[in-house]
Amino acid sequence: MEWIVDLVGPGVAQAMQVDAILYDGRSAFQRIQVAASRLFGRMLVLDDAIQTTERDEYTYHEMLVHLPLVTHPSPRRALIIGGGDGGTLEESLKHPLQKVTMVEIDRDVVEVCRRFLPGISGAAFEDPRTRLLVEDGIAYVRTARERFDVILVDSTDPKGPGVALFSPEFYAACATLLSDDGLLVAQSGSLLYQRDLTEMVRRHLRTVFPIVGTYWAPVPAYPGVLWSFSYGSKRFDPGRVTGDTITQRLTSVQTRFYGPATHAAGLQLPALL
Amino acid sequence: MEWIVDLVGPGVAQAMQVDAILYDGRSAFQRIQVAASRLFGRMLVLDDAIQTTERDEYTYHEMLVHLPLVTHPSPRRALIIGGGDGGTLEESLKHPLQKVTMVEIDRDVVEVCRRFLPGISGAAFEDPRTRLLVEDGIAYVRTARERFDVILVDSTDPKGPGVALFSPEFYAACATLLSDDGLLVAQSGSLLYQRDLTEMVRRHLRTVFPIVGTYWAPVPAYPGVLWSFSYGSKRFDPGRVTGDTITQRLTSVQTRFYGPATHAAGLQLPALL
Repeated sequence: MEWIVDLVGPGVAQAMQVDAILYDGRSAFQRIQVAASRLFGRMLVLDDAIQTTERDEYTYHEMLVHLPLVTHPSPRRALIIGGGDGGTLEESLKHPLQKVTMVEIDRDVVEVCRRFLPGISGAAFEDPRTRLLVEDGIAYVRTARERFDVILVDSTDPKGPGVALFSPEFYAACATLLSDDGLLVAQSGSLLYQRDLTEMVRRHLRTVFPIVGTYWAPVPAYPGVLWSFSYGSKRFDPGRVTGDTITQRLTSVQTRFYGPATHAAGLQLPALL
Repeated sequence: MEWIVDLVGPGVAQAMQVDAILYDGRSAFQRIQVAASRLFGRMLVLDDAIQTTERDEYTYHEMLVHLPLVTHPSPRRALIIGGGDGGTLEESLKHPLQKVTMVEIDRDVVEVCRRFLPGISGAAFEDPRTRLLVEDGIAYVRTARERFDVILVDSTDPKGPGVALFSPEFYAACATLLSDDGLLVAQSGSLLYQRDLTEMVRRHLRTVFPIVGTYWAPVPAYPGVLWSFSYGSKRFDPGRVTGDTITQRLTSVQTRFYGPATHAAGLQLPALL
């Protein structure tokens, strides 16, 4: 048995005991591990950072996906950048979208997750509306001709292959791909221990989008538990979506965490530290 | 420099670096320390467990206090059991109460906090509505003749002097002290890592009160960040308080965290693990 120790902030560390390593390999981009822990079940670890776990993946994926998809009144096409575990894809497909394009740079992540963490993606990769492209998300957004209503950036931290996904140039290219009323959401780090990162994402989004903000959700296995997501929107403001609209939009979308109360509370950003 | 390491759950540990120990003493009941950390400022540590910090005390105290005080339509008298740092007292006094009785077993905790953490209690101990009793909370609730509209149990974990504050007998005695429409709220442990404790508190409250439930708030320095509070109520249900009522009741009560959105979201208890 070993411990994964993560120095999550200045003078704060989180350690998780791992009962077994089910997979340990190296792709062209990063080290990929699947570990098993008593509390969180199986978890995906990339370059020593926990990415997702069987037990708590749903709060992260639901808040990343449903908040923007409900904010747009009639999304038809969504683009996912990253998200190799398939959880973001699965949540997106719960909505009546025509097509979901997912651009993941690392084929190995997709394959390892489908083998060891099949519950996170469910049948999403087999859905006829899914289009999986294994390529660099940066290159994709620079050259794509398609238009999307919602873009979901489900990246790692800004290191390794994920670093360019936090640049103003990337967000500008995304804005070009978005319809005139489209919006983008990106994971933007720990609300407690990565404030500089969250601020940088917001600052970069503001260079491109008129409506920019941040919301949060509790993700138990992540450093500091409270995780942030930041949005850039051309027209629709997540803060103006009513509880009734959310309830109505969820009639055919089953969620465990996302709903009117968590939408509203998530948008209230406590200045906790 | 040293680290405070807390094994917060099975296979999960949290460690916090401490830059200086400002006080280290032993009272008749427990070890009392005041430590300084970069991220959380000064913090009170009782028997090696972090109780409160300068930076994040407000989410805990606001949610412990304002949710029940707003749930009761016209509270006049409140009783605090524990709460030696004075934060619960200070938040309570923001409401137009006639009197707040605080029963804390350990005089040293009160004195150490007033000396090293004066910002947490502010001027609360000098308020003419405050009545501070240094005695055992169990003995107090068994023998008191007063009546209260709200009882707030701001205890340590169920070990040391705090253990009897989690018993059905204690809750029964509290119920006797409550007015016919009164309610009690108690801190009930980490939502992630003390589920057995939270369940026990709810079970014991159900033996006494018709309306029982749990809510949560993020408290960054606590194990697992997500903290639970459980209530037992004779008549008023926190789940039936409207956002308009909360807004109205807060017109003369300044809060940083508690409000309509956090009230509603706090009552949505995610089954996170």
